[in-house]
Amino acid sequence: MLEDLKKKVYYANMRLREEGLAVLTWGNASGRDAETGCMVIKPSGVPYGLLKPRDLVVVDLADGRVREGRLKPSSDTPTHLELYRAFPSLGGIVHTHSPEATAWAQAGREIPCYGTTHADHFHGAVPVARALTAEEVEAAYERNTGKAIVERFAGLDPMHCPAVLAAGHGPFAWGADAMQAVDNAVALETVARMARLTEGLAARKAAPLLPAHVAEKHFARKHGPNAYYGQGKR
Amino acid sequence: MLEDLKKKVYYANMRLREEGLAVLTWGNASGRDAETGCMVIKPSGVPYGLLKPRDLVVVDLADGRVREGRLKPSSDTPTHLELYRAFPSLGGIVHTHSPEATAWAQAGREIPCYGTTHADHFHGAVPVARALTAEEVEAAYERNTGKAIVERFAGLDPMHCPAVLAAGHGPFAWGADAMQAVDNAVALETVARMARLTEGLAARKAAPLLPAHVAEKHFARKHGPNAYYGQGKR
Amino acid sequence: MLEDLKKKVYYANMRLREEGLAVLTWGNASGRDAETGCMVIKPSGVPYGLLKPRDLVVVDLADGRVREGRLKPSSDTPTHLELYRAFPSLGGIVHTHSPEATAWAQAGREIPCYGTTHADHFHGAVPVARALTAEEVEAAYERNTGKAIVERFAGLDPMHCPAVLAAGHGPFAWGADAMQAVDNAVALETVARMARLTEGLAARKAAPLLPAHVAEKHFARKHGPNAYYGQGKR
Amino acid sequence: MLEDLKKKVYYANMRLREEGLAVLTWGNASGRDAETGCMVIKPSGVPYGLLKPRDLVVVDLADGRVREGRLKPSSDTPTHLELYRAFPSLGGIVHTHSPEATAWAQAGREIPCYGTTHADHFHGAVPVARALTAEEVEAAYERNTGKAIVERFAGLDPMHCPAVLAAGHGPFAWGADAMQAVDNAVALETVARMARLTEGLAARKAAPLLPAHVAEKHFARKHGPNAYYGQGKR
Repeated sequence: MLEDLKKKVYYANMRLREEGLAVLTWGNASGRDAETGCMVIKPSGVPYGLLKPRDLVVVDLADGRVREGRLKPSSDTPTHLELYRAFPSLGGIVHTHSPEATAWAQAGREIPCYGTTHADHFHGAVPVARALTAEEVEAAYERNTGKAIVERFAGLDPMHCPAVLAAGHGPFAWGADAMQAVDNAVALETVARMARLTEGLAARKAAPLLPAHVAEKHFARKHGPNAYYGQGKR
Repeated sequence: MLEDLKKKVYYANMRLREEGLAVLTWGNASGRDAETGCMVIKPSGVPYGLLKPRDLVVVDLADGRVREGRLKPSSDTPTHLELYRAFPSLGGIVHTHSPEATAWAQAGREIPCYGTTHADHFHGAVPVARALTAEEVEAAYERNTGKAIVERFAGLDPMHCPAVLAAGHGPFAWGADAMQAVDNAVALETVARMARLTEGLAARKAAPLLPAHVAEKHFARKHGPNAYYGQGKR
Repeated sequence: MLEDLKKKVYYANMRLREEGLAVLTWGNASGRDAETGCMVIKPSGVPYGLLKPRDLVVVDLADGRVREGRLKPSSDTPTHLELYRAFPSLGGIVHTHSPEATAWAQAGREIPCYGTTHADHFHGAVPVARALTAEEVEAAYERNTGKAIVERFAGLDPMHCPAVLAAGHGPFAWGADAMQAVDNAVALETVARMARLTEGLAARKAAPLLPAHVAEKHFARKHGPNAYYGQGKR
Repeated sequence: MLEDLKKKVYYANMRLREEGLAVLTWGNASGRDAETGCMVIKPSGVPYGLLKPRDLVVVDLADGRVREGRLKPSSDTPTHLELYRAFPSLGGIVHTHSPEATAWAQAGREIPCYGTTHADHFHGAVPVARALTAEEVEAAYERNTGKAIVERFAGLDPMHCPAVLAAGHGPFAWGADAMQAVDNAVALETVARMARLTEGLAARKAAPLLPAHVAEKHFARKHGPNAYYGQGKR
């Protein structure tokens, strides 16, 4: 069942590796099928190099049971289920440990909006979902990870900020379908990196300028009236 | 019309992704045709993987209208138009959100000339164009972005400093044609990274040196008279 | 002999380069054959581009002698031997100078557990094995490197923390076989990078936020009711 | 003439780009032919994508004149000539603007020996050649760049430290032939990056650890007796 969706979710998973968001067996993408009330998700612990479309697992959104598939679904399946149940606008979800976004999650910091790249994709800061208590971890770790995200989005439209950082863990991103969820995960990783670099540069450390006589020489030898760099006018 | 220029501008756009300056649908390159008074520019929001030469849009420089093309031109089209109109020497323009240059733009800092790599491409610091007022944003955001750049270059030769950082936004770069504009965007991104690293190193943090007895051992086992690393003299 | 193991260890070595953990002739992977009491290891100083499965060297774990092979084994062979002898659960070992993990080793710092990516692979901090004395370096540098690692793991299960940082030198990682050892070296390098970024972000430098009127404009032109970015609804 | 050497130096130049040491037209590699007293060097300002072996230029080491070639030799030719003349052991030289090494050059700092990766390739710190005076720049910039390097190596064996940082400019590296010079440029760039990271980590910023109950959960779900990550024992 859902062979078309399996292919789409398969490509979304493979793109996690291609875009540099996941290595080894890390990360997972899923897609929702509104008609059957199921989601299709990556199997647990399968390296990207070995993944095939038919390995994808169909899980029932209502009861969380596997409807089709020879393999166990991702261990993060209960988190995906919580998000699909709470946010009807979500058609796809991805979870990665992409390094720049994960570093913000590990530092327990939301990503402030420092520029238009951020504003193009996320309305306001990318929020952090709180760490779980020992009891929540013990009782149902992955499900409660989803609940903490839903709790954090009280009063927020998840399609206006299609990503969150799970504290101490890493990012979840989503969208209208699995591919758009990957797009948002790519945007998040880039925005996370830009924000880190921006904070470093805003500290305005000083360094000595290149002496003017060297700067003038270099510019002139390439662009001045007596330029001698290159092979002359083409 | 302008089929040759479309191919050139197409390749310039594709190089934005190849050089690591753009992901997803971000960024755009354009090229001017002096004879017809038109520019050719990337369509809005098309992923690089799907872009084809025939998708490029021909826009009239005088009135900003689409002269040819099935698709809408880049949303940044009015910025390109302002720059072509104000700077007759420009034959190509690119806009990216390349992370290192964008971080300087987000920090609101010009890039100081710290070395000859910078001096080879940019005469003096790479300037920052000021942030727009709420009124300017409201009235004509993209066009006023261009006007703020032109304002910043009062008294400067744009071919002597073929790039600018739009505050809070990201870089624009240009050149004699679209490919040279990409070259300058590549140079800018590298220079931005080098400048960041230079400022960090100039702070001269201390770290413990490798003990001399280990350093001597490692050098000697590879290069000393009794070296035993490798397969002996080839 | 051990032609199958040679192929596996060959692929493990080649993956060191593919995963960005090694350049030039740096790094080496080995695999243990329990039945014959031998290990298969990369030859010394051979660039990855020239390495072939038949170049791999078979070394006896008991006496350290070469059992088969035209080439000299890796200069780090005595370190591998010490680890296989002390830790019977190890089926594969890799040594790299991967930059992020090496920087922690050079700073003499263990990698603290800052997040779940770390916890997924390493139980507790990734430890540092102490620097060797001048006498230890002089007497048997590579062998004593192995002994210092074994000393550091007193009371630890090496399969619960499948990596170590040799102070001033770089990482060793291991696993049930050579490929799993590479997996753990990949995980270590990523975790090392994430930990560095986390410490930087935890310092909470300040940067100016993007003005709200620009942020709202950018979000709205792409996602608002009058969005004009892109080609409209697909 | 020197067709074999041209091919070798061509490959060395192409490797500058492949190894990420050069973009656009930056950087150059040369090789010495002892018999004819000539060197073969990259032409000036030719992009790597267009370079062909027959474009390489043969220059006489004695008088600096072009002995063969349709194109102008690299603008850095006089620097190469000075180094070959002063250091008879050099068979190949490369100059790059690789970002990490260039940042140290721009900061005017030598690279301290922080680890064995450094010690494997460079005996002691990688030195900085002083900035040139305005008179030296004016009179013969490229030649005096070479003279400043030779001056810095007074009392040093250039084959024991096969690289230098020209202050405010970037690295030169060398070796027994052009390919070994590239190897040393690769080692330098990696060592420069590791040294930067080491200094940052040695500052020992603090970040909050992952709570133990989460760390234990993650390790246990993957490696504990009741592990449920993955597809079970293979």
